[in-house]
Amino acid sequence: MNTDALFQALDRQRIETPSWGYGNSGTRFKTFAAPGAARDVFEKIEDAAEVHRLTGIAPSVALHIPWDEVEDYAELRRFAESRGVTLGAINPNVFQDDPYKFGSIANPDPEVRERAVGHLLECVEVMRQTGSRDLSLWFADGTNYAGQDDLRARKRRVREALGRVHDALPEGSRMLVEYKLFEPAFYATDLFDWGAAYAHCLAIGEKAQVLVDLGHHAQSVNIEQIVAFLLDEGRLGGFHFNARRYADDDLIVGTTNPFELFSIYAELVAAEGAGDDLTRTTARNVAYMIDQSHNIEPKVEAMLYSVLNCQEAYAKALLIDRERLAAAQAAGDVLGAHRTFTDAFRTDVRPLLAEWRRSHGLPEDPIAAHRASGYQAKVVAERGTAAAGGGFPVKS
Amino acid sequence: MNTDALFQALDRQRIETPSWGYGNSGTRFKTFAAPGAARDVFEKIEDAAEVHRLTGIAPSVALHIPWDEVEDYAELRRFAESRGVTLGAINPNVFQDDPYKFGSIANPDPEVRERAVGHLLECVEVMRQTGSRDLSLWFADGTNYAGQDDLRARKRRVREALGRVHDALPEGSRMLVEYKLFEPAFYATDLFDWGAAYAHCLAIGEKAQVLVDLGHHAQSVNIEQIVAFLLDEGRLGGFHFNARRYADDDLIVGTTNPFELFSIYAELVAAEGAGDDLTRTTARNVAYMIDQSHNIEPKVEAMLYSVLNCQEAYAKALLIDRERLAAAQAAGDVLGAHRTFTDAFRTDVRPLLAEWRRSHGLPEDPIAAHRASGYQAKVVAERGTAAAGGGFPVKS
Amino acid sequence: MNTDALFQALDRQRIETPSWGYGNSGTRFKTFAAPGAARDVFEKIEDAAEVHRLTGIAPSVALHIPWDEVEDYAELRRFAESRGVTLGAINPNVFQDDPYKFGSIANPDPEVRERAVGHLLECVEVMRQTGSRDLSLWFADGTNYAGQDDLRARKRRVREALGRVHDALPEGSRMLVEYKLFEPAFYATDLFDWGAAYAHCLAIGEKAQVLVDLGHHAQSVNIEQIVAFLLDEGRLGGFHFNARRYADDDLIVGTTNPFELFSIYAELVAAEGAGDDLTRTTARNVAYMIDQSHNIEPKVEAMLYSVLNCQEAYAKALLIDRERLAAAQAAGDVLGAHRTFTDAFRTDVRPLLAEWRRSHGLPEDPIAAHRASGYQAKVVAERGTAAAGGGFPVKS
Amino acid sequence: MNTDALFQALDRQRIETPSWGYGNSGTRFKTFAAPGAARDVFEKIEDAAEVHRLTGIAPSVALHIPWDEVEDYAELRRFAESRGVTLGAINPNVFQDDPYKFGSIANPDPEVRERAVGHLLECVEVMRQTGSRDLSLWFADGTNYAGQDDLRARKRRVREALGRVHDALPEGSRMLVEYKLFEPAFYATDLFDWGAAYAHCLAIGEKAQVLVDLGHHAQSVNIEQIVAFLLDEGRLGGFHFNARRYADDDLIVGTTNPFELFSIYAELVAAEGAGDDLTRTTARNVAYMIDQSHNIEPKVEAMLYSVLNCQEAYAKALLIDRERLAAAQAAGDVLGAHRTFTDAFRTDVRPLLAEWRRSHGLPEDPIAAHRASGYQAKVVAERGTAAAGGGFPVKS
Repeated sequence: MNTDALFQALDRQRIETPSWGYGNSGTRFKTFAAPGAARDVFEKIEDAAEVHRLTGIAPSVALHIPWDEVEDYAELRRFAESRGVTLGAINPNVFQDDPYKFGSIANPDPEVRERAVGHLLECVEVMRQTGSRDLSLWFADGTNYAGQDDLRARKRRVREALGRVHDALPEGSRMLVEYKLFEPAFYATDLFDWGAAYAHCLAIGEKAQVLVDLGHHAQSVNIEQIVAFLLDEGRLGGFHFNARRYADDDLIVGTTNPFELFSIYAELVAAEGAGDDLTRTTARNVAYMIDQSHNIEPKVEAMLYSVLNCQEAYAKALLIDRERLAAAQAAGDVLGAHRTFTDAFRTDVRPLLAEWRRSHGLPEDPIAAHRASGYQAKVVAERGTAAAGGGFPVKS
Repeated sequence: MNTDALFQALDRQRIETPSWGYGNSGTRFKTFAAPGAARDVFEKIEDAAEVHRLTGIAPSVALHIPWDEVEDYAELRRFAESRGVTLGAINPNVFQDDPYKFGSIANPDPEVRERAVGHLLECVEVMRQTGSRDLSLWFADGTNYAGQDDLRARKRRVREALGRVHDALPEGSRMLVEYKLFEPAFYATDLFDWGAAYAHCLAIGEKAQVLVDLGHHAQSVNIEQIVAFLLDEGRLGGFHFNARRYADDDLIVGTTNPFELFSIYAELVAAEGAGDDLTRTTARNVAYMIDQSHNIEPKVEAMLYSVLNCQEAYAKALLIDRERLAAAQAAGDVLGAHRTFTDAFRTDVRPLLAEWRRSHGLPEDPIAAHRASGYQAKVVAERGTAAAGGGFPVKS
Repeated sequence: MNTDALFQALDRQRIETPSWGYGNSGTRFKTFAAPGAARDVFEKIEDAAEVHRLTGIAPSVALHIPWDEVEDYAELRRFAESRGVTLGAINPNVFQDDPYKFGSIANPDPEVRERAVGHLLECVEVMRQTGSRDLSLWFADGTNYAGQDDLRARKRRVREALGRVHDALPEGSRMLVEYKLFEPAFYATDLFDWGAAYAHCLAIGEKAQVLVDLGHHAQSVNIEQIVAFLLDEGRLGGFHFNARRYADDDLIVGTTNPFELFSIYAELVAAEGAGDDLTRTTARNVAYMIDQSHNIEPKVEAMLYSVLNCQEAYAKALLIDRERLAAAQAAGDVLGAHRTFTDAFRTDVRPLLAEWRRSHGLPEDPIAAHRASGYQAKVVAERGTAAAGGGFPVKS
Repeated sequence: MNTDALFQALDRQRIETPSWGYGNSGTRFKTFAAPGAARDVFEKIEDAAEVHRLTGIAPSVALHIPWDEVEDYAELRRFAESRGVTLGAINPNVFQDDPYKFGSIANPDPEVRERAVGHLLECVEVMRQTGSRDLSLWFADGTNYAGQDDLRARKRRVREALGRVHDALPEGSRMLVEYKLFEPAFYATDLFDWGAAYAHCLAIGEKAQVLVDLGHHAQSVNIEQIVAFLLDEGRLGGFHFNARRYADDDLIVGTTNPFELFSIYAELVAAEGAGDDLTRTTARNVAYMIDQSHNIEPKVEAMLYSVLNCQEAYAKALLIDRERLAAAQAAGDVLGAHRTFTDAFRTDVRPLLAEWRRSHGLPEDPIAAHRASGYQAKVVAERGTAAAGGGFPVKS
């Protein structure tokens, strides 16, 4: 791939950052308050705009409702646009109200299910106002003890609720169905893996696609293979990028195993150029979103790091010599194929990306530029340190 | 459930034992030769007949082709029947010929794929001769290194081959598609989880169902939930029972976590009585098969232990007070539901099962009866200790 | 073992319940407020007393400082004694103050380390006032990103701090050093496994022993073997009992894999009768403590369930036919030994335990007695539903 | 670090390749015969010499006894030296004789234990003849079923046997005690983790050190932290390098997660320059050995790839800006420290290593040179394709 083609491909990359990544977050033990952390949706959008200003590839912000609820979404949309970003995926929250203790759309109580579906439908309405294409659905539903509830009945409740939401989606929009192995449920999670999400999507309709969160799999699962499978079936809708080693650690994407992130992008790049229409179209419509918790590190800088890690992984994936790879694969040349694949990963793409940034009027080193910009000091001064709450009570 | 109903349910239980469980097996390090281990398919059938004679619920034997290949399957069938058992599922082997080094039906080389499909179609022919209902398909296909082969291309090759075999199946028969996380492939396995197997089955037709091997999942995966999901979708075809803690350990079923085996049977028992036709029919047609490697323990006794562990788990699952469970579940009584569920597990069903055996003219303690029978000494005398081979070469 | 000997053994069993198990707890997503949950240390002690009143084997309560901090520990001690229980292990908290964001005793900042050691030494002082034998030490220290801090330097800081605390311990007391694979740290935890805890204990002195929390291991680790190893080395100090499937789930002990809990007790029972003095003495001084989070289930009932699960596991372990087991083991009778071992597990000990309770004037079914007692309704009326806090902020 | 210092450091790197890596190997399912695979120890040494000739940093070969047993080790030593390599660590084999079915040094049968110790002592004698410094000990000992044997008794048997071997070691030599989570044992492995190996080493004497095999840990365990811990305690003796994702996959080192290999080398490089004498001396005496199974790829090329991956990881670790890293760590600059650490990993060291090779008269691209050399064709012609054996019997 020559530099022109590379730069054109790099021009197309988009990473959506999440509003909640700019606010305080923590573990069940403690939420440490970060000085300058965004206190409301407007400050979150400002932080997201700073990330986009420095990287050029993070032009939208995902919202979490009701965390980011406002009276007037048209106004919020204008606010975002005035900062140079747009509003992205809408993420409903059906895990935090007290009635959701035993689940939302899978709850044994039909009233609770109705409440949950009602919130989801409100979020569909928000989509219309924000102009969002994607409704991003994660459910904390599950059980902690064997026998606690009927697994098949819960599955059917999930199916029914998803179907209702699906049918209410505006034309041209999608629902992205996320799965997760565990947490906060510790015996069984209702949408427990990609197979479950996929089966539901197939059953409810064309607007339903699967969302892959990199932190939601069992140990050792090959994520790039799931990505390839879903692309080939036309059902990969998007990503929640982050990194993990143990559980759903929600660390900065690419920090635990950068080779895995590269391997995932390698599948996406291949699919974007696939001969098969369905695969190619699916790949080109994938929503790339970050979903992380920056518990101990500065949030804006962490988000910059995340976006840049995705850019590096994508750039390396673009460098794979596809012809040579295909030839080695066809010949059963195991090590030749693997080496062709890993040679792209071995390449240091920082100079290339610095050049790409230069050519777009962006700072060559966005993190250094951010550190030099005084942005962090400014927001600390303006926002102070919000009470973080969270974690165990300090004193019962 | 009263004793009559319990006994009738116990009367319906069937566990198929595998011919290969009676022969020598080992790890990649060493296969220890077991004195008296079956040397050919006839001796394997004799061992299986011994297990059925003592337990009354293991009336069929799964075959592995070509390990159990014979010229005349009609004769083999008569031999089995003369011993009181029938021939069960046919298990093709497309992992052991030299051309399969890079896979069978997913191999990049079309000639190798053709060879593999050819063998599978031969096995369909064997089914006609043995009267087997189920073609049980496990593929070792996969890759060891990232980039070694094209994951989507391999998926499509699998789809095509499975479709061809599906369409050749005799009326009334099925193909059971097994999945496995890893081993012998260590980067990506082509049929890597239930979702992949399920997607293929959906695509190729009604005669394709998923086979769940208890040892083929990632750490911590909730197997009973997969079972429930597949039952509800009408796509659970059968089991390969065994136990694991680490990898695909292929230990005696129920020895690592008996509560898990109970929880799986709890789903099956519930589905057998489901109001939904598809679920109920699916549950009643599940093929219960054992697939184990008895590397260090006596094989016939190990198989007895396995069959009895399944019987205990099933009996306990029958004892669950379903009405009380449903009431507690509906009320959100987490601990009441869990206790109702676990009270059945806590029950010692050995006396009940001894009584059931007595009532069927079976030995109350099949293992003690086997130890007292002299069977093991007899086969050691007759068969001696076959050279085991396997493992690393003793001296290169 | 005859019934007299069994009952005497059962008489000796002790399970310490944790004060924090009676208050609200949750996940990072949400803490659901439980009606009637204890609001302060006095209410926690009342709940613990209720558990002891019904079970007879939970006579002490572990405290968490500063969650349970009071001005006058002598008064607290008298309060506990007036309710029929005593104060147990002291659990310092060095993870919740803001300065501990990068660790406590392993923090790169010497002032923070000093603060942490200061708190630990205060807790040693509390021990003197409460009459506690055990200082139970868990550290959240660790890092989230490779390179974040120097792993060897952190290890040395831990060693030094532990040594200082060790040397301040009153005569006859102990420090129990807990380890944990991960959470809240997601790259490296400073006390990451039993080997790390053991090495530190060896280095700092005789009063330091290892504490095993059942939820703090990597997937598939054999905990009973660690228990056996530490018993044999004379360095097993205590347990934090709970159950897990995925991460540190902190579920009710024995609910995920009751056979594992039985296997752990089997090692403890064997060691209590060991010929070797060190092993025997160590086993007899093990501190059995519960450490759980009852996020969705009623807390007192959950604690009853926990204590009873330990009693069942212990009773089953007492029933192992040790002579027969030893004979089978010596003979290489793999399945005979395993069956002897599992026959004890298969036994339904509920009738035996009901009898033991009757003989001690305890309710035969403590959970039913608790449900019938009106205790829960009483505390709901008295305490109401405390605000739970925790989890993500409802609205940023 | 300037280029001179870098080159000097690169000059010091040594990777020992294993004789058994050049012969056929496989999984329990099948050993595919590789054309040209070495058939005896002489051919293995020739292959190892080829790897050293092309890389310059693999000057020794580990031997496996009895696989590599010869009458005259002095002659073997001269043969190796004539090919430009030396004989390295001696690896006894106490897992493949029939009496070892229930273990070797932990076997309940004292005669089997004596046999095993006898073999180990013979290997000590071989060390004298080969001039080997290291006795590399791996034991397959363990149990498959709970209760099968007495865990504490087995531990004591291990301790006793290791002590006897330790005391027989020649002056200046060492025993490296390897641990492994599982396989071929599936319930409990006697030397199950680094803590167990470490405890035994401490107890038996100064010549005993721990050997870390990268494939022998539970999922998600942080290996570089174990390395750091053992270095700091002066008990890290050596490595068995390979890569894994699932079990003990024994793939080419660095292929699964190259960042992990880099992180391990980062600890080693840091320790080599440690202020502390014990740590520094320990680091400088670490034995770097490869232990892999090249089941489907050409063996000599695979070994080249392995050695080069270690060289790349080491070179990157040398590039870490240690001063900057330490400053960021001390300042609690989480992302600054992480970025400094990862910037070294991001660097493409291939040009640097090509230059280093050029300066040593080595081919710039050893793999390309090997492919061009005709070596593989030559050995295929000379050696043919040896029968591989292994795996399940083709026909029972």
